[in-house]
Amino acid sequence: MTDILALGNLETLERARRVTAAEQYDIGSRFPVVIEAAEGSWMRDVEGNRILDVTAASGALLLGNQHPAVVEAVVDAVRNHGAVFATTLSPQRVELADRLTQRYPAAEKAVFCKTGSESTTTAIRLARAATDRDLVLTSGYHGWHDWQLSYLKMGFESRTRVVNFGYNETALRRLLEEFADEIACVFVTPEPAWFDVDYYRRLSDLCRAHGVLFALDEVITGLRWGARGLNGTGGVPADIVTISKGLGNGHSIASVLGRADVINAYDKAGICGTYTREVPPMAAALAVLDVVADGSVHARTEEVGAALRSRMHGVLTDAGIPAHVAGPPMMFDVILESDDLARDIFRAAFDHGVYFEDSGTQMITAAWGDAEVDHAVGAFEKAVREVLSRTDYRPGAVTNERKIEFATEAFGGELVDDAALLAKIDETVAAIAARERDSVVEPPTACG
Amino acid sequence: MTDILALGNLETLERARRVTAAEQYDIGSRFPVVIEAAEGSWMRDVEGNRILDVTAASGALLLGNQHPAVVEAVVDAVRNHGAVFATTLSPQRVELADRLTQRYPAAEKAVFCKTGSESTTTAIRLARAATDRDLVLTSGYHGWHDWQLSYLKMGFESRTRVVNFGYNETALRRLLEEFADEIACVFVTPEPAWFDVDYYRRLSDLCRAHGVLFALDEVITGLRWGARGLNGTGGVPADIVTISKGLGNGHSIASVLGRADVINAYDKAGICGTYTREVPPMAAALAVLDVVADGSVHARTEEVGAALRSRMHGVLTDAGIPAHVAGPPMMFDVILESDDLARDIFRAAFDHGVYFEDSGTQMITAAWGDAEVDHAVGAFEKAVREVLSRTDYRPGAVTNERKIEFATEAFGGELVDDAALLAKIDETVAAIAARERDSVVEPPTACG
Repeated sequence: MTDILALGNLETLERARRVTAAEQYDIGSRFPVVIEAAEGSWMRDVEGNRILDVTAASGALLLGNQHPAVVEAVVDAVRNHGAVFATTLSPQRVELADRLTQRYPAAEKAVFCKTGSESTTTAIRLARAATDRDLVLTSGYHGWHDWQLSYLKMGFESRTRVVNFGYNETALRRLLEEFADEIACVFVTPEPAWFDVDYYRRLSDLCRAHGVLFALDEVITGLRWGARGLNGTGGVPADIVTISKGLGNGHSIASVLGRADVINAYDKAGICGTYTREVPPMAAALAVLDVVADGSVHARTEEVGAALRSRMHGVLTDAGIPAHVAGPPMMFDVILESDDLARDIFRAAFDHGVYFEDSGTQMITAAWGDAEVDHAVGAFEKAVREVLSRTDYRPGAVTNERKIEFATEAFGGELVDDAALLAKIDETVAAIAARERDSVVEPPTACG
Repeated sequence: MTDILALGNLETLERARRVTAAEQYDIGSRFPVVIEAAEGSWMRDVEGNRILDVTAASGALLLGNQHPAVVEAVVDAVRNHGAVFATTLSPQRVELADRLTQRYPAAEKAVFCKTGSESTTTAIRLARAATDRDLVLTSGYHGWHDWQLSYLKMGFESRTRVVNFGYNETALRRLLEEFADEIACVFVTPEPAWFDVDYYRRLSDLCRAHGVLFALDEVITGLRWGARGLNGTGGVPADIVTISKGLGNGHSIASVLGRADVINAYDKAGICGTYTREVPPMAAALAVLDVVADGSVHARTEEVGAALRSRMHGVLTDAGIPAHVAGPPMMFDVILESDDLARDIFRAAFDHGVYFEDSGTQMITAAWGDAEVDHAVGAFEKAVREVLSRTDYRPGAVTNERKIEFATEAFGGELVDDAALLAKIDETVAAIAARERDSVVEPPTACG
C-alpha cells in the first residue's frame, strides 16, 4: 500500500483511471479526492486533508465510520466466529431477523442479501412467486439491475413487466382498477421531501382495497426517515419492506422484510446467494440496532440535521438565493433555480473541506454534532459568497415548474395530471392489456 | 445472543424457520445444524460439536475461517480506515485492481461488486454496452438474477435475449455463423470436471474468429481451478472474466476483469452500487493475494485435495461402489449411480462430523492438512459401510448415460449431438431470428 499512499489525489485518480475507475460514476460525479480513512464523518484524503462528509457515503453510514460498538462487533466476528460457514444459518442471522421483525410492522420474517439492488430484486421475485402474478407497479429508484432501469420513464416495460406509474395517484388508481388481479405488488420508494405520510398511506390503502401487495423500498429511508423509516411510523402498513443503508453502518447487508407467506416464497422464487450468510455485516447490524435501540441517537441526530438544514437555508436566504429546502433532518434536499448553480456552490465548499452531495440529498450521521454543523455551514457560506462574487447571478425564483421538473428528473415523479399525462396513462393501460401472457421463466429447483 | 446460543441445533432451526429460514435453501438442502463459529475448515455448532467443512462454505473460503492475515487486514481496515467513504475510490480499491490486472491475462481493468450474481450481471451489461449488441450466448450457472434462471434449459429466452447453448460446440458454431454480429458476448462457466482446457480454448478461438467477446464466469474457479483459474493458465484468452469466491476469503467481494474498452462501458451500462466501494473486503482480498502470491499455498492445497479425492475414490472402490470421481483437487465431483445413494452416504458421514456437499462439488481450503483428510476419509468410510449394511444395494455402474444425465441436471450440459439436439438448435436459431428488435432499455444517466 505504501506506494499508493505516497501518491497525491490527482496521481491516484490517474492510476485509478487506468485500472478501475469509471469516468463518470467514480470520477466525474465526485469531487477530485481519494479517501484513505474516515472517523465519524471526517474523512482523510491521501494527501492528509480532512474533509467533512455530508453524503454519509451515499447514505450507507448511520453512525459514522469507526463507531466503537460496530468496530468491536466486526472484530469479534472475524476473530472469534468467522466470515461464512457451510450452513446459511447462524445465530447472528436468526437474532438479526428476530430483531427486525420486532422493529418493523411489516416484518413477520426477514431474509438477507448484500446490496439494495439485490434486496429490491428479491422483493419483486418474492411477490411474483407468492401471487403467481406478473405485473409489478413501481415508482422511484430501486437500483441498477435490468428491471430497475426504467425508473425515470412512466409506462410499461414489456420485457420486465414493470409498470412505472411515476408516483401519480390517478395512474395508480386506474391501473389497480384495470389490472388488480394481475399485479404481484405495488413497489414504491418513499421520497420524503416530496410526499407526506398521508400520501403513502393512501397508496397502501388503495392496494389493500384491491387485494394487491404493497411494498416499500426503504433501502435509504429505513433507518434515516425517522428511526424506523416510513413503515416504522406505523402509519403506512406494508406487506414487504426492503432496507439496507445504515443497517450495517457501511458493511454491506440488506434485508427483505415481509409477511411470512411472501417471504416463504423464497424457494419458489429461486433466490439464493453464497454471501447472504456472511456473518460480520450481521454482527455489525446487531451492534447498530443496539446503539439505536432507545431512540435517543436518532432524536439527537435529527436535532443536528434540523440545525444544518435550517442554517443552510438561512445562508441562501441571506445571500438572496431562492431555494427549496425540504425533507427530514437526516436526508434533506437543497434545490436551487438551476442544478449548475448548486453544483458550483458545493464544489466551492469542497475546497473549504466539506463534501456535500452535489446532485441530491444531504445526509448526516450520528457522529455529527455542533462542530460539524458549524464547519459545514461555514464552508457553505464562503462557497456561496465566492460563487456570487465571480458570476453575474441574478436571483430568480424556485418556481413550481422548477420543482416539478426536478421531481421528474430526480425520481421520475409525474406530479401534474395534465392532458399529456392522462394520455400516457391510457397508452400504458393499452400496452399492458396487449402484453404477451407467456409464462414467466420458472426458476430451477437447484440453486447454485 | 446469549439466549440463542443456549438453544440446540433443532430449536435454533425451529426459531430460524419462524423468522428467516427458507424451507429448502436454508434447511432442506443442508444438514440439520447451525454453526456459530469456524476456524480453518473446522466448524463448531451451537451445541459445541466440531464438524469438518468439505464445502468451503459454497466455495467462498479459500484459506479457511479466521486466517490470521485476513483477520488482521479486516481488523486494520475497520479500526484504522473505515467501511465506506463519500468517494467510491480508495487506495485499497486501486491497489486491488492493479494486482488483479497483473494476475489475470484478461484483465486490463477491474471493477468491483459484492456478489457473484452481480458480477455476472455486470459482465453482460458491460458487453452489451460496449458492443451495442443484444444477444448473450451462455452456458452454465451464473447466479440467481432474472436473466440467469434459464441455465438448465437450452434455447433462446426472448425477454432477456439470452441464448443457452448448453456447452454444445455444434450449437455454438452454428449460432456464431448465424448471428456473430448481433452477439454481445459468449459467456461460459468452466466445468473443470467435464471439459478440459482445450475445450475452452476452442470456444475462445471460435469467438475471436467471429469477432465476438469471450467471457469466462470464474466466480467459482478463479482461485480454485489452479491458482488463477482457467484464464490464469494463459491457455484460454478471454475478454471478460468474473471472479468472486475465495477472493475475500468469505468476505463479500466480486470483480469483473476485462479489456479496458469493455470495462470502460461501465457508465454507459448504468452500473453502480453503494457497497461496491466497501473497504474491508478489499483489504481481505489484498491479504489473500499476498498469502497466495508465490503459488506455494495452492500447490500444497492441491496436494491435499488430490489425496482426499484419491482416498474417497479408494473407499468407494473397496466397497464395490462404482463412482465417477473427477475434477481438479480443490473442486472435484463424486458421482455415484444415483443421487439418493450419494446423499445417504454424505448424510451418514455428517453424523461422524464431516459436512460434505451432498449435491455437488467437494471443496477444501488451504487450512486442510493430513489430519483433515484422515478425518474426512474416516467418516466417509464409516458412512459407506453403514449405508451398505442397512440397504440392499447391488452395484451397477456409472454409465455414460448417467454421466450425461448428471451433466444436464447439474449445469445444463447438452453433451450429445443427437437428432433431438440438432432440432433444438434449428428451433433456437429460428426463435432468435424472429425476435423483436426493439431497442434495449437505455440506462438513465444518473445512477442513484
